[in-house]
Amino acid sequence: MKSTVHRKRLDFLTTISASRAREIIDSYEIELDSESVRIEESVGRVLAEDIFSPEDLPYFDRSLVDGYAVSFKDSIGASENNPIILTKKGTVRVGELPKLVLGRGECVYANTGALIPDGADSVVMQEFARETGDFVEILRPVYKGENVIFKGEDVKKGELVLTKGKRISPFDVGVLAALGVTELRVKKRPKVGIVSTGDEIIPPQEKADSGKVRDVNGYALISLFRKLGGETTYAGISTDNIEDLMEKLTLIKESDILIISGGSSKGERDMIVEAVKELGGDLFFHGVNIRPGKPFFFGLIWNRPIFGLPGHPLSCLIVAHRFVLPLFHKLAGEREKRSKSIYGILTTNVPSTYGVEEYVNVRVEVEGKNVFVHPVFAKSASVAVLTRSSGYLAVDESKEGHEKGEEVKVYLYEI
Amino acid sequence: MKSTVHRKRLDFLTTISASRAREIIDSYEIELDSESVRIEESVGRVLAEDIFSPEDLPYFDRSLVDGYAVSFKDSIGASENNPIILTKKGTVRVGELPKLVLGRGECVYANTGALIPDGADSVVMQEFARETGDFVEILRPVYKGENVIFKGEDVKKGELVLTKGKRISPFDVGVLAALGVTELRVKKRPKVGIVSTGDEIIPPQEKADSGKVRDVNGYALISLFRKLGGETTYAGISTDNIEDLMEKLTLIKESDILIISGGSSKGERDMIVEAVKELGGDLFFHGVNIRPGKPFFFGLIWNRPIFGLPGHPLSCLIVAHRFVLPLFHKLAGEREKRSKSIYGILTTNVPSTYGVEEYVNVRVEVEGKNVFVHPVFAKSASVAVLTRSSGYLAVDESKEGHEKGEEVKVYLYEI
Repeated sequence: MKSTVHRKRLDFLTTISASRAREIIDSYEIELDSESVRIEESVGRVLAEDIFSPEDLPYFDRSLVDGYAVSFKDSIGASENNPIILTKKGTVRVGELPKLVLGRGECVYANTGALIPDGADSVVMQEFARETGDFVEILRPVYKGENVIFKGEDVKKGELVLTKGKRISPFDVGVLAALGVTELRVKKRPKVGIVSTGDEIIPPQEKADSGKVRDVNGYALISLFRKLGGETTYAGISTDNIEDLMEKLTLIKESDILIISGGSSKGERDMIVEAVKELGGDLFFHGVNIRPGKPFFFGLIWNRPIFGLPGHPLSCLIVAHRFVLPLFHKLAGEREKRSKSIYGILTTNVPSTYGVEEYVNVRVEVEGKNVFVHPVFAKSASVAVLTRSSGYLAVDESKEGHEKGEEVKVYLYEI
Repeated sequence: MKSTVHRKRLDFLTTISASRAREIIDSYEIELDSESVRIEESVGRVLAEDIFSPEDLPYFDRSLVDGYAVSFKDSIGASENNPIILTKKGTVRVGELPKLVLGRGECVYANTGALIPDGADSVVMQEFARETGDFVEILRPVYKGENVIFKGEDVKKGELVLTKGKRISPFDVGVLAALGVTELRVKKRPKVGIVSTGDEIIPPQEKADSGKVRDVNGYALISLFRKLGGETTYAGISTDNIEDLMEKLTLIKESDILIISGGSSKGERDMIVEAVKELGGDLFFHGVNIRPGKPFFFGLIWNRPIFGLPGHPLSCLIVAHRFVLPLFHKLAGEREKRSKSIYGILTTNVPSTYGVEEYVNVRVEVEGKNVFVHPVFAKSASVAVLTRSSGYLAVDESKEGHEKGEEVKVYLYEI
């Protein structure tokens, strides 16, 4: 694993802009190791190498129809009224190797998919031929290569077939099988470690009495990164005690990305920052001009990136989508941008504050060819809102909102 | 597992229309069993039960800000110049149970997320209050419920939270955790069994000489159904020998859906049909007015659905998308229609035959807000075409094609 960060650490932690925060996170350069997998296990993994074809596909000239393999020259001038008569030298079935070379005036019957012998370059469909004993009447001329796929016509030996960084699809697996590639190198799954914090947070199996609330972020984040092909470690819930948090963080030390969620009050946030520093970590920023999620931080610990996400579930998950997923996808080695978005018509005015990149949770409704974008307003502590959401708008810091009827871009949640 | 088929078997196998084929497949009614999973393992699975909230969420009245919990009545008329003075009865931190009931003229400091005590119904943000010794000056009135989320306001006990048939998202897992639901019943993964057939077909690790070609369909179909959440059994490759095929079919006897691919010549197809019948199976149709894929068949064997798909990879995968996936999704128990589609502008004329539902493989290109649909023409035996494809058009049997510039619907491949 190589890892470098081009940014100097900020000595004075001040609130920065969303675009600056993105720049800093983007500057984190890392490449994860690769591993070998069999093609039947490879779907959804990310290719860690370019795949060049080890051979020609097809491996031989193949008939595309049931008919008579001929030299096209032998068919010139053939017609229903003036058929050309060729000598039938036998039949080639699919999967068979013909033992002959075709001479002029000769043909063989070839099934769909069969190898056509040397000397033949075209196939006359059986509908346009008449077999009588050892002879075949050709009723129509063929052009050179008609009804044939030539050796290497589909894929040439040495041709680039799949590119490093491609997420392997079921179709790709089929192509690899066709080429005889049975194993490949794929990127290791990024390891994401997650700690939830807060004296009030309890595990889901506990009773939510005495002013406690159950951990939502830990479970949602685990599921999100698993769904995206990551490996996750959930260190559990830390109290607002620095020793406890340091212990929990140490549990996810081997992760490629570390995430702490929580710290809604200033005191808790200070404690989290203190714990990161105590363990030798550095923060590059702490506080971004975004809403929700302002106290968001990013840094390095054990030479690995660490994110501090808000405690409120919706805020936590929006900030994770906006800032953590791009780094996750980079680590996953995927070449293509994966942030899924859609355009639609806004159904309500959305006010926003100038100078702040503001995220508005929305529900997208598709009616035929129309896409409607409904903002979903809810109290900050709402959890149920998650089941009614499809994505979010990001209102630029230079804007004071969007108007009803405007076409807006929705970033879809990875759900 | 319950399974019934409402269609009578067709005694005379004739070519039927695509819509009739869909009707027959749709009439196959089946419900798979469910199983229990822990929520952290549930993402991507399909809910087999409705989830009603076992309790109120939040479980108590919570403060949404840092400030002073009060009775709103005690704040009426408060202003910067005429503050109302309340007695501070202490502090409630998040995760703590307050030991007091608030009387008139009293307040407590409450952190964001803290339980607010009986007697309080609102929270004055700390910016609008001034603490001096045991007293707090309230500088602004609050309305009843301001800055508070009440017990059950997010989710009421007994409320329907998630519906049977929903594919569980990372956000759903978060909501379930919040409600203390740690286990749920999900649909079992549909089991798909696959046999490839053909004397010319060899496994990917073998050398493609002597007129043989490697199995593409088996590998692509396994990967497709795995990606969609199924369990797959690949019985391997059967030669065009009835005994061999019967043996291979028996290997996938326990599958919920059985698929045979291959049989490009009439002789092979007859042998496949013979094998299915020999094992006690029935075909409901054999031959559909579609292109490609005309010899496609569907029936029942061991009381389970069996599909016969074309041998050419692209044809096989289009017919699988068009006819097998709807049944797969039905078995998976998913409530929502899952066939993903997109509209776009056709960039080339696409001719088609009247009376035949014709599938045209396409590549979709998104340029900003424009979607372009490029038909991908390739020889029937082409495999590499799979890496350049995003979906297909289905030209209705009542049409003779589409024109360049027309807006057409593309069914996206599940890749």
